[in-house]
Amino acid sequence: MAARTARKGLIPGDGIGKEVIPAGRRILEALPASLGLKFEFVNLKAGFETFEQTGAALPDETVQILKSECDGALFGAVSSPSTAVKGYSSPIVALRKKLDLYANVRPVKTVMTAPKPIDMVIVRENTEDLYVKEEKTYDTENGKVAEAIKRISQRASSRIATMAGEIALRRQKIREAGGQSIHKGPLVTITHKSNVLSQTDGLFRSTAREALADPKFQSVAVEEQIVDSMVYKLFRQPEAYDVIVAPNLYGDILSDGAAALVGSLGLVPSANVGEGFAIGEPCHGSAPDIMGQGIANPIATLRSAALMLEFLNEEQAAAKIYAAVDANLEEGKLLSPDLGGKAKTDEVVEDILRRL
Amino acid sequence: MAARTARKGLIPGDGIGKEVIPAGRRILEALPASLGLKFEFVNLKAGFETFEQTGAALPDETVQILKSECDGALFGAVSSPSTAVKGYSSPIVALRKKLDLYANVRPVKTVMTAPKPIDMVIVRENTEDLYVKEEKTYDTENGKVAEAIKRISQRASSRIATMAGEIALRRQKIREAGGQSIHKGPLVTITHKSNVLSQTDGLFRSTAREALADPKFQSVAVEEQIVDSMVYKLFRQPEAYDVIVAPNLYGDILSDGAAALVGSLGLVPSANVGEGFAIGEPCHGSAPDIMGQGIANPIATLRSAALMLEFLNEEQAAAKIYAAVDANLEEGKLLSPDLGGKAKTDEVVEDILRRL
Ligand SMILES: CC(C)[C@H](C(=O)O)[C@@H](O)C(=O)O
Ligand SMILES: CC(C)[C@H](C(=O)O)[C@@H](O)C(=O)O
Repeated sequence: MAARTARKGLIPGDGIGKEVIPAGRRILEALPASLGLKFEFVNLKAGFETFEQTGAALPDETVQILKSECDGALFGAVSSPSTAVKGYSSPIVALRKKLDLYANVRPVKTVMTAPKPIDMVIVRENTEDLYVKEEKTYDTENGKVAEAIKRISQRASSRIATMAGEIALRRQKIREAGGQSIHKGPLVTITHKSNVLSQTDGLFRSTAREALADPKFQSVAVEEQIVDSMVYKLFRQPEAYDVIVAPNLYGDILSDGAAALVGSLGLVPSANVGEGFAIGEPCHGSAPDIMGQGIANPIATLRSAALMLEFLNEEQAAAKIYAAVDANLEEGKLLSPDLGGKAKTDEVVEDILRRL
Repeated sequence: MAARTARKGLIPGDGIGKEVIPAGRRILEALPASLGLKFEFVNLKAGFETFEQTGAALPDETVQILKSECDGALFGAVSSPSTAVKGYSSPIVALRKKLDLYANVRPVKTVMTAPKPIDMVIVRENTEDLYVKEEKTYDTENGKVAEAIKRISQRASSRIATMAGEIALRRQKIREAGGQSIHKGPLVTITHKSNVLSQTDGLFRSTAREALADPKFQSVAVEEQIVDSMVYKLFRQPEAYDVIVAPNLYGDILSDGAAALVGSLGLVPSANVGEGFAIGEPCHGSAPDIMGQGIANPIATLRSAALMLEFLNEEQAAAKIYAAVDANLEEGKLLSPDLGGKAKTDEVVEDILRRL
């Protein structure tokens, strides 16, 4: 079989983004040749430092090269300025929209040997809701008032719910093929706040219900949770959840909340997924407090690289990375400081590469 | 001293609301005569059952009587219909707006003898944000689209931040007077998502900062958390938080999240507070799954009654109720099923009354 060559963008961004993205590159390069995969990489700019240098947080060139040359990318993290800076806005939010990466997928999973194993995926709509960023401010006799639009469409709600259903089926297939799991069957939980937002969240809810009523999802159980009680349940019974689907902002909040369940944001990956394109992105931020020390946990990025591959249909390669990471965690000898260990980023990476 | 007579509305609502509100009445009636308090009660209607009977979830009469005769009330819980019902919308949301109860205050506290004590208050703005419920739906060539307005005003942000600061000072005073606490000094954490919503949440953030910069809050430390990382921190380091102030929707989500930290929603009270008026409201819902069995935990309501008194300047009476509830929990013999016990609602109430 000829090797499949696929070019990936590397967008380190700011802070520890610069320390973890090289780790992502290393694991892709270290995948066994037997998989027949070959990668090319292109370094791309984005972030606050880029903004300060060039006036654009997401240079056009970055978007153009991703669109024309790549089928995927790894994105590190970017700093948010501590007060609003004119002209600056988050490049990852812009990238999700420009490449129509309509799903943000965040698996939150402990090792199966944990005392209370958890194994869920949060599937977050990634293009609309309050993230359309249509805001205005006006003066009144009682002072300033600002308004933002929360927009929910049938189209975006339907495709994200469909993806949630497909992910639920895929997870079930892996389980049936002998993968370990705490779940008996596939379950999708629709999260919303339609008791207050009857039209917007009501549309998300009814559209998701409809999409999941498709015969192909017949084996998938479907339930709902109001977002506030979803957060409550997430912490009281996290083991009960398999796939959670949510509009953009609730998905953002839920996925950080879920990350807290596994001990460190440094473990939690995500992928921004569109048609034939996926960007892997660790859930943690740029962590200015630890940057430059070489102690950032690379696991969120390694898992994000795997997740990217998974959505580009390289499931075997993804499985190898997941297994190597799990083996490192289960042994528990070479852990970064966020997990109570003393290992440097490079030591963790090397331990995991050895296990590939 | 002549007894102070104050009329309170009792609004049981639906489900277990009908079982816990009578408990709230009982504890108010049982307060020691030495406090010089006398209550009159008026039963008022609201909720889904009321909607089905009368066509209005919040009858005008209920609002009128509260406005003209009462200085406070206890609100139980209401059922949400499982699909949108034309004309129905949440009566508590409407009540908060009609009585301008601009703050929703939710203390989340373990007993101080807990292995990891927590002692925080979430101060939620209660009148605006997405709860203005201004929504519209339109058709496009790609299907339906719905929009909602998120509105943030300087006025509402300023007064809620001021209340948060005042609560922080009050808590500090109680600590200095010998109350037990895990906190060294007063701290207010402002929660927002201004990295995405630079105008609306940006206005909340800058206005709250300004309000808390008032010299009277000189001793109060002020910090910020982006809402997603706030949820993360809430679960990783709950002991770090004293007073958290947030716009309406984030406050809704955070307070359910915080409730999960103390083991049961059945323990968590809230008060809806305006100028000279306060409605105590347990954080739990109408719990159709356990209604009619007499096993609902009354503690959230008893604490809500105390919280209502606190905001009506009857702090001594409030302190008595808190202490009686804490004594019941510390002994841990008569607990309702949500806490792993076997006691009925009435047995818990009687045990607490005995300790008043
Ligand atoms: C940095 C921020 C704009 C972003 C978001 O809200 O989507 C982040 O929280 C995330 O989850 O990727
Ligand atoms: C019932 C619902 C409308 C309400 C809210 O969102 O405010 C509830 O969750 C609460 O927190 O009191």
